[in-house]
Amino acid sequence: MPEYDRIQCPAFKSKIMSADAAAALIPEGCNVGMSGFTGSGAPKEVPMALARRIEAQLAQGHHFKIGMWTGASTGPEIDGALAKVNGINMRLPYQSDPTSRERINQGDINYIDMHLSHVAQYVWFGFFGKLNVALIEVAGILPDGRLIPSTSVGNNKTWLDQADLVILEVNERQPLGLAGMHDVYYGTQLPPHRVPIPLVHPHDRIGEPYLRCDPAKVIAVVPTHKADRNSPFKPADADSEQIAGHLIDFFKSEVRHGRLPKSLLPLQSGVGNIANAVLAGLNNGPFENLTAFTEVMQDGMLAMLRSGKMVGASATGFSLSPEGEQDFVDNIDFYRDKIVLRPQEMSNHPELIRRLGVIAMNAMIEADIYGNVNSTHVMGSSIMNGIGGSGDFARNAYLSIFMAKSSARGGDISCIVPAVSHVDHTEHDVQILVTERGLADLRGLAPKQRARLIIDNCSAPEYRPMLQEYFERALHHSRGKHTPMLLDEALSWHARFERTGSMKVREAVAA
Amino acid sequence: MPEYDRIQCPAFKSKIMSADAAAALIPEGCNVGMSGFTGSGAPKEVPMALARRIEAQLAQGHHFKIGMWTGASTGPEIDGALAKVNGINMRLPYQSDPTSRERINQGDINYIDMHLSHVAQYVWFGFFGKLNVALIEVAGILPDGRLIPSTSVGNNKTWLDQADLVILEVNERQPLGLAGMHDVYYGTQLPPHRVPIPLVHPHDRIGEPYLRCDPAKVIAVVPTHKADRNSPFKPADADSEQIAGHLIDFFKSEVRHGRLPKSLLPLQSGVGNIANAVLAGLNNGPFENLTAFTEVMQDGMLAMLRSGKMVGASATGFSLSPEGEQDFVDNIDFYRDKIVLRPQEMSNHPELIRRLGVIAMNAMIEADIYGNVNSTHVMGSSIMNGIGGSGDFARNAYLSIFMAKSSARGGDISCIVPAVSHVDHTEHDVQILVTERGLADLRGLAPKQRARLIIDNCSAPEYRPMLQEYFERALHHSRGKHTPMLLDEALSWHARFERTGSMKVREAVAA
Repeated sequence: MPEYDRIQCPAFKSKIMSADAAAALIPEGCNVGMSGFTGSGAPKEVPMALARRIEAQLAQGHHFKIGMWTGASTGPEIDGALAKVNGINMRLPYQSDPTSRERINQGDINYIDMHLSHVAQYVWFGFFGKLNVALIEVAGILPDGRLIPSTSVGNNKTWLDQADLVILEVNERQPLGLAGMHDVYYGTQLPPHRVPIPLVHPHDRIGEPYLRCDPAKVIAVVPTHKADRNSPFKPADADSEQIAGHLIDFFKSEVRHGRLPKSLLPLQSGVGNIANAVLAGLNNGPFENLTAFTEVMQDGMLAMLRSGKMVGASATGFSLSPEGEQDFVDNIDFYRDKIVLRPQEMSNHPELIRRLGVIAMNAMIEADIYGNVNSTHVMGSSIMNGIGGSGDFARNAYLSIFMAKSSARGGDISCIVPAVSHVDHTEHDVQILVTERGLADLRGLAPKQRARLIIDNCSAPEYRPMLQEYFERALHHSRGKHTPMLLDEALSWHARFERTGSMKVREAVAA
Repeated sequence: MPEYDRIQCPAFKSKIMSADAAAALIPEGCNVGMSGFTGSGAPKEVPMALARRIEAQLAQGHHFKIGMWTGASTGPEIDGALAKVNGINMRLPYQSDPTSRERINQGDINYIDMHLSHVAQYVWFGFFGKLNVALIEVAGILPDGRLIPSTSVGNNKTWLDQADLVILEVNERQPLGLAGMHDVYYGTQLPPHRVPIPLVHPHDRIGEPYLRCDPAKVIAVVPTHKADRNSPFKPADADSEQIAGHLIDFFKSEVRHGRLPKSLLPLQSGVGNIANAVLAGLNNGPFENLTAFTEVMQDGMLAMLRSGKMVGASATGFSLSPEGEQDFVDNIDFYRDKIVLRPQEMSNHPELIRRLGVIAMNAMIEADIYGNVNSTHVMGSSIMNGIGGSGDFARNAYLSIFMAKSSARGGDISCIVPAVSHVDHTEHDVQILVTERGLADLRGLAPKQRARLIIDNCSAPEYRPMLQEYFERALHHSRGKHTPMLLDEALSWHARFERTGSMKVREAVAA
């Protein structure tokens, strides 16, 4: 048996076994709390072994499913592998895997799409029933049994506390230099015993660098050696750069008007092309001493820390390209005291987001002319990913910003519509909309004022006259003139897309 | 000139004048921040004098309008009088006056309907522009110039701080025994200087009993003698009592399952018939040592304090019947140390609501089969009142409960619909729905599971088969099976009501 240097506690050493042996210990029909937040720090071997076990049982006509709880999305060897063998009965709180998405939209998986800040507390409250197994990737186990967290913290503290049984994957591919980067706050309580969370700067440390774990609950320890899922970094396209440009002009104007300090306020940024362009723009912009209080650290934020534009960042995990990961590993001593990784109940906590005055920048699927935002559903019925942390941030932010290209699918979908087909962020929570066409600052505006500004500033030129025409007719025919709406037409653009493949009015020609 | 005992500071005494003289000092086109939260503590004379001034100008063909900012709703002599003369250009953050509502729905008033916890900070952030005048009712002025707040605190601290000019109404009808009941927290800051709010129990006192006011800004002091708007208490009807019964059974079950302590958790309750029935049910129920962390104190909560069922309560104002008001005045020494009145930025603060683990109980206009809730719009376009604090509480609550009768208008409106015509609380924020038909506990359920439960437990019998039929067809025809939806039909019930006066399918007969 090889020496596993990363497993320094004797009580855990005796539990070392293969992924298949560990997967065999997972009871049928149980709820499994897994590590992982956008692929970082997710378990890599036991889920695949479990998928093999489920597949083998399926071949014998036996359906074996689990409830799968995570931090957020994971990787193809977890969500993908388990969805492929139809091994997931209930999934929460977020996913972004193509196979998993397909299963959900076929109706095979019950998916609970929820605010990421709510997950840990709902489990503590007992609202989701019993958590049976925690399956957690760690970077190492200390002699006293405490765990060095991996590249994300997510809900790991809660899973380790709440589960009856614990399976650990010790990933030797994760840098040991991670030790000391985490801040696990153990001061949480259930109501009525909660107290203020003593954090006042994004990079404050208020907890412990390691995860606690009761050795008596550990039933398996599986050494692994596999990289986190990571996606190649795509250079920003022209539309994304224009969105970034509008946003940075807006920040400059806010500073000029005294509504933002020169160092702005802590940044929260979703992931993706637009976010990358915004971060690149900020890295080349006039603002100094920036900070981040966000969910995931992306390449763009590492670049800002390197350039000195950003002085500190808080997140719950990473979402890096292969090059970003290499840079992070190579320079981990530089990054360690500038990055704090927290449990997602802290990275996304309403109390902290509101106190810090976060600038929340999130992508959307579509917005309507009144500024309601759909972050989750395609054409009202199919899930894309989930709301994730966007609601935690948007509701409690100093500035709540949503961004998208003005049209999608080669222009066949307008991202500004008469009414969104699903609402995730209501008009009450959306202040700034940005597309490549421009920015709509909705602060201090009533619904009809919002509509005119959104149509004029954000919509795609080919849809603008259609939106104007809808709005004017709604203003004329709608019973209420507060939020004019044509009930028969509000969702007709989506219905037309489903029928014809485009929101554009081709039917007049066909008729 | 009479002696005004309530105005003890010489600097303020010299500013005593009539309501008409004070109203004449309000600049045209300015923004006025008024006191008032559901009628309690609203100014009573100057707004009517201002309305007279506006009317006189209107008679000469001159349009005079103000921006009107308040705590929440006010009374007929404020919202009603000013809306009647079309004297309001922009209104925020909440109203419930029939004349004001009509003006908004005619398109005459720009109304910004927003979370009540957001108001003060957005004004501090400069998002709404300059506040010119504060018009505040107080119970008295101390020798050193501090103000004894009236029956609500609302946004008064912010208006007094932010306005250039201050007009005070000193209402001698308000009991002086109010002194000491308020808790005005002056520890708020702008980001990045915010710190934790040191409140851990609903009735903690963390601030000062009086409002600060710069005497140099005071341009008028108007003695008044008029009662708060108050509405007669209606005994609960059978439907409301059934809703209350379902809810109390649910609480009992939660206590049995260990998910709630026997003293429950701090209660938040909206106002109205259903709320009254729930509070009466709790007063006769098995729970002891209850507390409240809510917006307004109603008759039912006074009754619970009197009976000893409730040991302490926090709010930002009162909403009492005439009998309730009399009881409060007669027994103010009993109530003073059991009730804390706070600024609404504290009574509705996400940090505090989440920390305390509030049980949020709010009324709704309608819910859809997936648990999205409409609190504000009738048939999508007409405002009813506004979202008020329901979002602050629902999002951050331990339990988020919404209640309504299953149908309205003699059965012509179903309060459970295929899709709500406006979304104020998304599926992510709604845990429990209750109608007189029953309760749907949506915790831990995915969309299709939610739909079946809501239809089965909450819908009116005459609409249940229609909802079942819609859901089954949506399940069959919808592209996505995650949240099945028929885009052509989702809002057809509302459209039918607008066409025929009923959501019931009479058209088949007529055709």
